This record gives sequence, structure tokens and C-alpha cells, in this order.
Amino acid sequence: MTLPAALLETLHTSFGADVSTAEAERLAYAYDNSRRNALPDAVVFAREHAQIETLVQACRSHRIPVIARGRGTNTTGATVPVDGGVVVSFERMNRILRIDPDNRFAIVEPGVLNGDLQRALAPHGFFWPPDPTSSPWCSIGGNLACNSAGPRTVKYGSPRENTLGLRAVAGTGEGFRCGTYTSKGATGYDLTRLLIGSEGTLALITEATLKLTPKPTGLRTLRAMYRDVNSAAHAVARIMAQPVTPCALEFIDDVALKLAHDHGGDSVPLAGAMLMIEVDGEPDTLPSAVEAVARAARGDGLEELRVAETTEETQALWSARKALSPAQRTISPNKINEDVVVPVSHLPELVAGIRALSRKHDVLIVTFGHAGNGNLHVNLLPRDEAERERAHACLAEVFALVISLQGTLSGEHGIGLVKREFMPLALAPSTLTLMRNVKAAFDPDGILNPGKLLP
Amino acid sequence: MTLPAALLETLHTSFGADVSTAEAERLAYAYDNSRRNALPDAVVFAREHAQIETLVQACRSHRIPVIARGRGTNTTGATVPVDGGVVVSFERMNRILRIDPDNRFAIVEPGVLNGDLQRALAPHGFFWPPDPTSSPWCSIGGNLACNSAGPRTVKYGSPRENTLGLRAVAGTGEGFRCGTYTSKGATGYDLTRLLIGSEGTLALITEATLKLTPKPTGLRTLRAMYRDVNSAAHAVARIMAQPVTPCALEFIDDVALKLAHDHGGDSVPLAGAMLMIEVDGEPDTLPSAVEAVARAARGDGLEELRVAETTEETQALWSARKALSPAQRTISPNKINEDVVVPVSHLPELVAGIRALSRKHDVLIVTFGHAGNGNLHVNLLPRDEAERERAHACLAEVFALVISLQGTLSGEHGIGLVKREFMPLALAPSTLTLMRNVKAAFDPDGILNPGKLLP
Repeated sequence: MTLPAALLETLHTSFGADVSTAEAERLAYAYDNSRRNALPDAVVFAREHAQIETLVQACRSHRIPVIARGRGTNTTGATVPVDGGVVVSFERMNRILRIDPDNRFAIVEPGVLNGDLQRALAPHGFFWPPDPTSSPWCSIGGNLACNSAGPRTVKYGSPRENTLGLRAVAGTGEGFRCGTYTSKGATGYDLTRLLIGSEGTLALITEATLKLTPKPTGLRTLRAMYRDVNSAAHAVARIMAQPVTPCALEFIDDVALKLAHDHGGDSVPLAGAMLMIEVDGEPDTLPSAVEAVARAARGDGLEELRVAETTEETQALWSARKALSPAQRTISPNKINEDVVVPVSHLPELVAGIRALSRKHDVLIVTFGHAGNGNLHVNLLPRDEAERERAHACLAEVFALVISLQGTLSGEHGIGLVKREFMPLALAPSTLTLMRNVKAAFDPDGILNPGKLLP
Repeated sequence: MTLPAALLETLHTSFGADVSTAEAERLAYAYDNSRRNALPDAVVFAREHAQIETLVQACRSHRIPVIARGRGTNTTGATVPVDGGVVVSFERMNRILRIDPDNRFAIVEPGVLNGDLQRALAPHGFFWPPDPTSSPWCSIGGNLACNSAGPRTVKYGSPRENTLGLRAVAGTGEGFRCGTYTSKGATGYDLTRLLIGSEGTLALITEATLKLTPKPTGLRTLRAMYRDVNSAAHAVARIMAQPVTPCALEFIDDVALKLAHDHGGDSVPLAGAMLMIEVDGEPDTLPSAVEAVARAARGDGLEELRVAETTEETQALWSARKALSPAQRTISPNKINEDVVVPVSHLPELVAGIRALSRKHDVLIVTFGHAGNGNLHVNLLPRDEAERERAHACLAEVFALVISLQGTLSGEHGIGLVKREFMPLALAPSTLTLMRNVKAAFDPDGILNPGKLLP
């Protein structure tokens, strides 16, 4: 596809030097962290809302796809321009427009990096809860598009619980605002949450009003080692059934621990399974919070429980978790990185079932993640092409297992390109039909991020 | 309108004895707490999901309105059948299907009363945060339809933040499920939040999976009296800018205090304004929480700060707030009961502006409510027909003031019938167009609760 001359002229008029059709630039915006790729016909760098209205209107009149892109850190191919078209990068539209501590909100452009926002909020005593591992280099716009979460979600919620309002441009080319500047609202349909997690298929977000949370001044870290994954999973359910909700409750299985140990050295402990638990709050409330969580962590199968007393000890306790990502990369550059989620009490069955599937398909699988939400990263680590094929067959059975346990396909990565085919496992035809109707309500010509999310 | 015989036959077949066209029954379901009323052509009492599919399909084929109704406690006319049709009462579909403390959710039918659910959850150590004043006799289905909140929202959020998934029947007559049984999910569009607050105009909710929160075992109550509303409003902003978020932060202005005093006696204090503040948590964390909140409550204009030490003292501190509702009723049986919301730091301007409008239109207005969310009940108390007309003119200016302060029309009551005409004040035409498109996506023939929410 080459873009119509009239469209290119409109783009040049509206974006000036911020539009490129050079192959080098198109290559750089062809892929994301899914390692899938497809060349766009042009790349534009947005700087303001009005440009997005112009762009979408022009692309709509020529039926050309428009793909919004933050920093491309997503793992599902959600920003890969599979049908060509125009990729809109928001990386230059990255101003923090307002920080309003009295009203507990911040207004940002979509290209602001998550980490930059957190740094700007810190002096005010606030933070924005969503904290993907990629926070230093992922954008708020991307976090909103994918409903990206992270460890803190167990206590503080995902972007859907931490966003008050949005400005956006629908697939019709019309700009609109939705939501409020207040922490409460019952004025019409909740379009804000509908856009969050819609992966750029309904509208392009050009501004967000984010709900801020006071940053607790104290934090304590615990590490619990268990005889086996089953006893660790039961401890997770006990911890979540008592009143003190931890701000992180991370699980690491024995396979992952072994891998991290082999890669990271003796400082990484070996055990049947491990939980990393953090509690936060005002400093004088922490001793009782630690005690409450520790009480719940104790039980059948606990082998060791340590509480970090210093920053150094905290870092040491996290060493296994930190060693995990590089260790996986050395084994399999093509890891399949899933983020399934089940009700917490079904974690033991999930972990046992995954183990059985790993054996059945002879594929190495490590399992770790945000156990407090029942959200586990199930990473399949194929080492060659034959294993890749077996891994794909295994994956379908992992999803079927998750659905049978009342879980769902994705807790925080989204669907994108790579999980579309599995959507009918998770959602009945009537639900998918309604989602398609909603898509048509925002984007009647289907130009926004085609080929994503809906099967 | 009389219903077509074929439709009535379908209703009798599906609902058996649970369908009525008797005038007495139709009269009983003609109105809600808005005191508006309009006769439905029939009333049916649902007992299961399949009946709702049959009902909506049959009504759709005859283009007959379907109006879902919980317990009719809403104040906006949201359940008044203005175009006739069939009112579906969910009061007999009221089973708590499952309480799952390990996974922090409960599954309920829509007719379960909020208060009954709370009582059933208490032995498990959990609660469901939304707590409208009407909780003993309002239904969960109604709470979801209107996104009804209450004082605890300041800390725990509204139904949108406390619901995991829904089962429902769209205006097409098709049943569907949306959302998850997990506390995290990124699998497609968020239809759950879209239905919450849609006032029965998109779909009829037949089952809800509610997110539960551990119930803190301790609670402390503070009462702060201020010289004037301005200093109280500034204290609210200070309290919300520090890390300890209260679980209630209620404001009462001087006019309301005087009214409550005249009605409730000397136990109700007189002052320029009053704040009722509650903090909850585990008992050993409460002293520091009380101290943090008290520190923020102190400042220019504080005249008295009391902390209740016993249950009796707590009840005494709440006496003014409790005396308020009956006091208003004695003055004006036709009070106009609004629930506008502004960013917390704009409360001083809101309260001052309302005072000016009260003088300008010569209408008594009392202002009180959930100040921690910036959500104030602005109650206009006209005593006769002439005052009623002035009150309506005043109301339009109240809404204009709220919008000018970056607020919105409703924090927790919703729009219904009575605020529809004001929607264009709050939402731009492009946003309203998208909402109409969403309505058409769920209810192509416009049979669900016609005449509500959208202008």
C-alpha cells in the first residue's frame, strides 16, 4: 500500500516535519515487544490533540488504518500495523499538564513515561498506582490502552480504578472528553473505562486525568519459602482472606527459582516455591501489618520466613525475582510470555495443571507473578523451532485450563494480535457481538488498529 | 397503550402468577422516590435470567418499553415508566448465590438488598463498600444501575470500583456475561463498568459478581466545628491531601445545622459548619490515624474538635447529621435533592456560590454531604408553588456553577428523568453522540427505559 497523495499532503500540512515515510523510520515503528512486525506506510509524531482529529478524519476518508503507539513495550503485538497505514507515535506529546495534590489528580499527555510521572509526583507525596515492570520506559497512554498493571494492583487497582477522565479522538475523527475531574461521578455512561484496555481500537487518547494516591511513607518486605507450590498457593489465599492487604504478593515457582539460581548465583534461594510480600503504610502501622501478614503466611509447608530490616536486605530478598528475566532470555530468546489470571483459591490447581502440561508437551515453563490477584506469568521457553511448535499447542491447553478454573486470558498484557484467536474460549458469542457493536459505535469504518483484540 | 394479546400471553407463559395488569399493582410500580409517576401497562416479577431474555425478546418484537426496577429508592425518576410498557421488578430475584471469602467476591441476584448482603458478609469479615443511606431497603441491582455510592466511597470507591463481572440481557434480548471472577482482567472491552450507571438503558442486570473488601475491625469518629463554611472546606482539602484517607468525611453547612438544631434539639450543635470524620483500620493503627486526620482538621477557623471515645459518644456526634432528613421533610415535602460534585479544592467557591444563589432566588438551600469526594447534597426546600418555580430556575444556575468549577451534575444519584435536560451543560455534543451510539449498540430499538439519562 502507498498512501494517497492527498492524505500525505494533509499529514505534511498538519504534522510538518513530524511525519516520515522513510524506510528507516517505518522499520523502527514496525514492531513492538511481541517481536511481531509489519511495516507501516507512514509514521507521524503527534504534539497536540487537534492533529489527531485531522489525522483520523483524513485517514477515515481514505479508509487508511491508524495505529496509536506509546513506547511499544507491550508483548501482544497490539501496536504492530498488520494492515499497514499510519502509526501515530505519542512519544513527543509528553507533557505533564498539571499536578493537583489538593484534588488528588494529575493531567498528562499520553506520551509521558510512567516513571517520569512517578518522579514528578514524589515531592507532592503522591503516586499513580499502575507500575508495570517496564515503568521507566513505558508511556501512560500505553498503560491506559492496555490496562497495564503490575505488582501494586493487588492493593491499589489497575488503570481502570485509577483514571478519572480522558480526552480522545474516536474512529469517526471527532474529539471528545469523558469522565470527570472528581473522584465520583454518575453523569451518563462510563466511556472512560470503556476506552481503557481497548488497545487503540475505539479511540486515540490525547489527554488523561489520573487519580493520585497518597504515597505511604513506610514499606516492609517479607520473603517466605515453601516446601512446594501447593503450600505457597494456599498461603496466598490465606493472606488475601485477612484484612491487611499487601501492596505486593509475588509468587515464584521452583522451576523459576532454579533458573534464577543457576543464573544469579547462590544468593538466590532454592525451594519448592517462594512468596515475596510487601506491606506499606505509615511507619507506626507496619509492625502490626507485618505480623498480620506473617501469621497468614505461616502454615503447612512453610520452610523459612524472613523479614528484611534494611534496604540492603530488601534488595537481597528481591534478588531471585530480579534474576529471573535475564535468566529466561539466556534460555529462550523467543519466550512466550503469558499473564493468565484465575481466582486466588484456584492457584494450586492452575500451577499443578501447568506442570502437567509442561511434561505432556515437553516444554520448559516457568510460573511466577502477581499471586495476590491470581495473575501468573506463565512463560513457555522453547529453545528451537520444534519446541516452538509444541509450545503453541501447549499454550492453547493452558488457556483452556485457565477458563475451566473461572479465570481469563489476560490480567494485564491485553489481547493484541497474539491472543485474538483465543478470545472465543473466554467470551461467549453474545458478548463478542456486543463488543463488535461497541467497536462500530466508535469506529464505524474500522480504521483504528485493525486486526487487534476482537477475533 | 394496552399491551398486544400475543405479548401478554408470552408474559403469562413465562412469568406465570408473577405478572400483573391490575391497576392497583400498576399504581404501586408507577413511581419512585422522585415522586414523579407514570402508569406501566404491566408489572412482572422476575425470578430467573431466562425470563428476562424471553421478556425483552417479546417486548422488542412489539416495540414495548421494558423498565427494570429494584426498590424504587432512586430520586431521579430513573424507574418511572414514562412511556408505559412493562416494569420488571427484581424484588423476588433476591438470592445470594455465593460468598467466596478466599477470592474476595460474592455472586448475587439483583434483588438482594444492600443491607441484607452486608449482614451476610459480616461473619466472613468482609463488606461491599457502596453504602447509600437507603442501604436497608435498596437493592444491589439498583445500586449498580445508578452507580449509587455513599459516605464510604471517599476511601473505598463506588460500584464501578467494586464489581468484577455481570450477567445481563441487552436490548436485543440476548443474554451475555462480561467481566471476570478475578480482581484483574484485560480481556476485551470493559462492558461491566459501561453497564454500571447506565440506569437500565443498555441492559438488564440479572447477576453480579461483587468485589469484597475486608472489614476493618476498628473505627473512630471525630467531629470538627468551624467558624464558617470556607474554613471547613479548606480543612477538607487539607485532610484529603495527607496520606490517611478517612472512610467518611461529611460536611454540614450552617443552614443545615440550624435546621437540625431547631428540629433535633440542643444536642445538635450550632456553628458556621461542621465536619464528621471517620477513620477505620486495625485497632492498633487507629490512634495514629486519628492524630493524622486531626492534625489536618486543625487550622484557621476551627472552633472545636471532639473525638468520640465510646459508641454512645459516636452516636451523639452523628445526631446532627441524623436529624437533618426529618427536619427537611417538615419544611418542604417537595425538596429538590441534588448531588453535585466538584474537585475538593473548589468546595469553598461552590458553597459560597450556592449561598449567593439562595439569596438571589429567595429559596432555602441546605448543603451537606460527602465532602471528601467533593460531592455535596444541595437540597432546595421550596415551601409553596411560587417557591417551587423559583427553585427550578435556581437549580439551572446551581448546575452552571458546578460545571464552571470543573464539576459534574451527579456524584451518586444519576441522571434519570429529572436531570436529562441538563446533560448538555455537562457533556459536549460529541460525547453525547458517542453515548447515543453506545445505546444503539446495546438496544437498537430503544426499548430499554426510554426517556432516561440521554437528552
